[in-house]
Amino acid sequence: MSVQTASPPRVLHPLVERLRGIVGNEGVIGREDELLVYECDGYVVEKKTPDVVVFPETTEQVVAIVQACNELDVPFVPRGAGTSLAGGTLPVGGGVMICLTRMRKILEVSLRDRYAVVEPGLVNVHLTNHLKGSGYHYAPDPSSQGACTIGGNVATNSGGPHTLKYGVTVNHVLGVEAVMPDGSVVQFGGPCEDSPGYDLTGLFVGSEGTFGVCTKVWVRLTRDPAAYRTMLGIFETVKAATEAISAIIGAGIIPAALEMMDQGIVGALEQAFHFGFPLDAGAVLLIEVDGLEVAVDQEAERIVALCQQHGAREVRMANTPSERALLWKCRKQAFGAIGRLSPSYCTQDGVVPRTRLPEILDFINATSEKYGLRIVNVFHAGDGNIHPILLFDERHAEQVKAVIAAGDEILEKCIALGGSVTGEHGIGVEKISLMNHLFTEETLAVMGDVRKAFNPDGRCAPHKMLPTAGGCGMEHIERNHPGRRAAM
Amino acid sequence: MSVQTASPPRVLHPLVERLRGIVGNEGVIGREDELLVYECDGYVVEKKTPDVVVFPETTEQVVAIVQACNELDVPFVPRGAGTSLAGGTLPVGGGVMICLTRMRKILEVSLRDRYAVVEPGLVNVHLTNHLKGSGYHYAPDPSSQGACTIGGNVATNSGGPHTLKYGVTVNHVLGVEAVMPDGSVVQFGGPCEDSPGYDLTGLFVGSEGTFGVCTKVWVRLTRDPAAYRTMLGIFETVKAATEAISAIIGAGIIPAALEMMDQGIVGALEQAFHFGFPLDAGAVLLIEVDGLEVAVDQEAERIVALCQQHGAREVRMANTPSERALLWKCRKQAFGAIGRLSPSYCTQDGVVPRTRLPEILDFINATSEKYGLRIVNVFHAGDGNIHPILLFDERHAEQVKAVIAAGDEILEKCIALGGSVTGEHGIGVEKISLMNHLFTEETLAVMGDVRKAFNPDGRCAPHKMLPTAGGCGMEHIERNHPGRRAAM
Repeated sequence: MSVQTASPPRVLHPLVERLRGIVGNEGVIGREDELLVYECDGYVVEKKTPDVVVFPETTEQVVAIVQACNELDVPFVPRGAGTSLAGGTLPVGGGVMICLTRMRKILEVSLRDRYAVVEPGLVNVHLTNHLKGSGYHYAPDPSSQGACTIGGNVATNSGGPHTLKYGVTVNHVLGVEAVMPDGSVVQFGGPCEDSPGYDLTGLFVGSEGTFGVCTKVWVRLTRDPAAYRTMLGIFETVKAATEAISAIIGAGIIPAALEMMDQGIVGALEQAFHFGFPLDAGAVLLIEVDGLEVAVDQEAERIVALCQQHGAREVRMANTPSERALLWKCRKQAFGAIGRLSPSYCTQDGVVPRTRLPEILDFINATSEKYGLRIVNVFHAGDGNIHPILLFDERHAEQVKAVIAAGDEILEKCIALGGSVTGEHGIGVEKISLMNHLFTEETLAVMGDVRKAFNPDGRCAPHKMLPTAGGCGMEHIERNHPGRRAAM
Repeated sequence: MSVQTASPPRVLHPLVERLRGIVGNEGVIGREDELLVYECDGYVVEKKTPDVVVFPETTEQVVAIVQACNELDVPFVPRGAGTSLAGGTLPVGGGVMICLTRMRKILEVSLRDRYAVVEPGLVNVHLTNHLKGSGYHYAPDPSSQGACTIGGNVATNSGGPHTLKYGVTVNHVLGVEAVMPDGSVVQFGGPCEDSPGYDLTGLFVGSEGTFGVCTKVWVRLTRDPAAYRTMLGIFETVKAATEAISAIIGAGIIPAALEMMDQGIVGALEQAFHFGFPLDAGAVLLIEVDGLEVAVDQEAERIVALCQQHGAREVRMANTPSERALLWKCRKQAFGAIGRLSPSYCTQDGVVPRTRLPEILDFINATSEKYGLRIVNVFHAGDGNIHPILLFDERHAEQVKAVIAAGDEILEKCIALGGSVTGEHGIGVEKISLMNHLFTEETLAVMGDVRKAFNPDGRCAPHKMLPTAGGCGMEHIERNHPGRRAAM
């Protein structure tokens, strides 16, 4: 879990000069104070500054950058907006960070064939904003959608509140263009629904940058539903809310979203947005159904009845589009609101079978007491995907340690309950050590072989996703890339 | 496209003895007359008899068989029911056919967590039959579902009439256990929805046996819809039917199924089932919507109106479950009915953007005339997935040649129209030569590298999916497996 943060020498002339030749002076950041911005992503627990950050604007520039890294034997890591919550963009071993935020064009929109072609640095919500009024939208909506990029969503196979009905990113990606770690350009999939051969599109999605640098994405567009009903169910306890969830799903209803927020998070949201959330409720469910007007009315009625049968104190219905928008704003900005509770926080990401939610929540409470850490919860309840948020102050080393230990215990418990260690944030650097608990040696060996097929020299996004020999990965990088220091 | 069919010497003593030791005498077929059954699958155009067929009943037996093949350097190919329409189970290069039809147990059904665990040899429809009355079913329903196995569905990522709404096999497979080509046993995925790491489950599905032998499958169960409406739209021309399809999809309706049958197939069906199909209609659409009672009524009304607006002569509604069942029986047994038209037939499988359906159908008609072959059409119109059925007599070599040439021309046209060469049947041996038209050298190289990661010696399902040097593959096999003759 520890990553060395001592910086290698910053004598980068040959490489930096080469990169400037490719993208121009304004496309390269090499000054130590400017590089600090890139020392971590949304996972603030571990830090490592890249040696240089480069901002390509075309696929050809990405090819040239990757070729330069290969010739000079320097590792490289792609990055979008840096909203990864698992250290997915941490430049372990230093090297070149390829920041794709200047490749943000919408290249094509085909409503007739229901796809769009976008560059990887496009911010998720910008695509949906662009489509407003067309009757279509891009379905995956991570909570960070106002900042995160579609390329980053591809890397981590992001989910979001609407995953329950609409699926995760891989269900909405028809194809990718990527620069392979050897500098060749490939296209997997494309605008047509059915692509023969191995499903390399599906494999690339969720590979966390270890298979190459994505430079173009064909995404599926989803028709806007004719109608929504958005409800807020207020429960005395988390257990009662969980039972209501099981009853809703058990009744054969698949809500478009089914989100739970506990007392801690509701308090923070209320302070921030003054929505009128009850501060004394144990849990609040945000439930949305969508579809035909007649169908959503019927489903909403059944949901209200099921919530009441399972002890809901009250079920409120959003009566206007602006009430609905405010409810979603609360949910999506929950993470921002946490700023009011604590200087730093770590959002964990685990999965349990939906029916084990009460058990894992009891365990989280016990872990909170054990480590003296405040933990609040907001999560995709319908999927059994939990997001305990561990509050701490990163200036205190012992609190950082406690956060790591508590997070690990919660994830181990998820495994023990038949779940897994990430629902949507990915493995990154944060969870590498847990992969051994989840997979047998044989399965990890196959994963390693597949990675080697794409990334034989290990220069692309090193020490991500799979455990490597030698512990923290830095030694591994140093060992495998003796040329790096020389080139710099 | 040609595959040598000359048999290698059948002196198989060391291998056959070893296999008998593993599965017992009754689990091995080595007699020439008995092997004839396995000389082809649903793709009758090319033939090749395996040297021996073995029927394991456990994963451990599969491991022992694979180990024996490796030690004796003999290629092996997994097979389910042999319903592949692309020669997916053709034992190019001979060797051992591992037939999984005796591994057909349903190992677990969890309605609460909505999955089942089955052995690969389980016949697709047996799972849904087993679930009858539970409120759940297994959604992928290939036309061959009464015969094909779930393991075979995994290998080819099978679709079916309900793909339009419910997706293909990969959308319903949560995990697989497989014996790797080196004899190790791995599990990808499992009962839990979210599995971290590379999506090897998704990659394995559709790999046509080239990544190992599937021995267990975790499948998702789908809730039975509350209600159906099943309609038959009768049109004067294929073009009018196609325009109605575009209008339905364009209106934002996603039918559970949207199937088109042309005049030729309707005639054969009517002869077989006496449903009352009009023999003079140019095309018939089978349209089904499912969901809540109130919603299906509204959707069905809109569909009827849209069909009428686009020139439907008549739209019939199935008024009883038995009328619905008969309609589906007609559709699913369309292939059986073709027996009345011709001694042999080859079902092609191509994809075009939905809006190009009229063009490809015109082209198919022209090709039919050019080669003097009768071609009838039944297909998943909603997906743009065409299935022209080329009628011929396999006893006439020149007809076989014409079928291959006409099929290739139709598929090339699909590519030219922005589509692809298979929607659901897979590449098998049939379409290997077309892969070069669809993919760049760079992309094929990545596919080859990935195959090598799983199957470094190429012994598992050789000459499937990817083009190999040396044309027909036989030489390749012979060259790479010099030990094979020696062992036999």
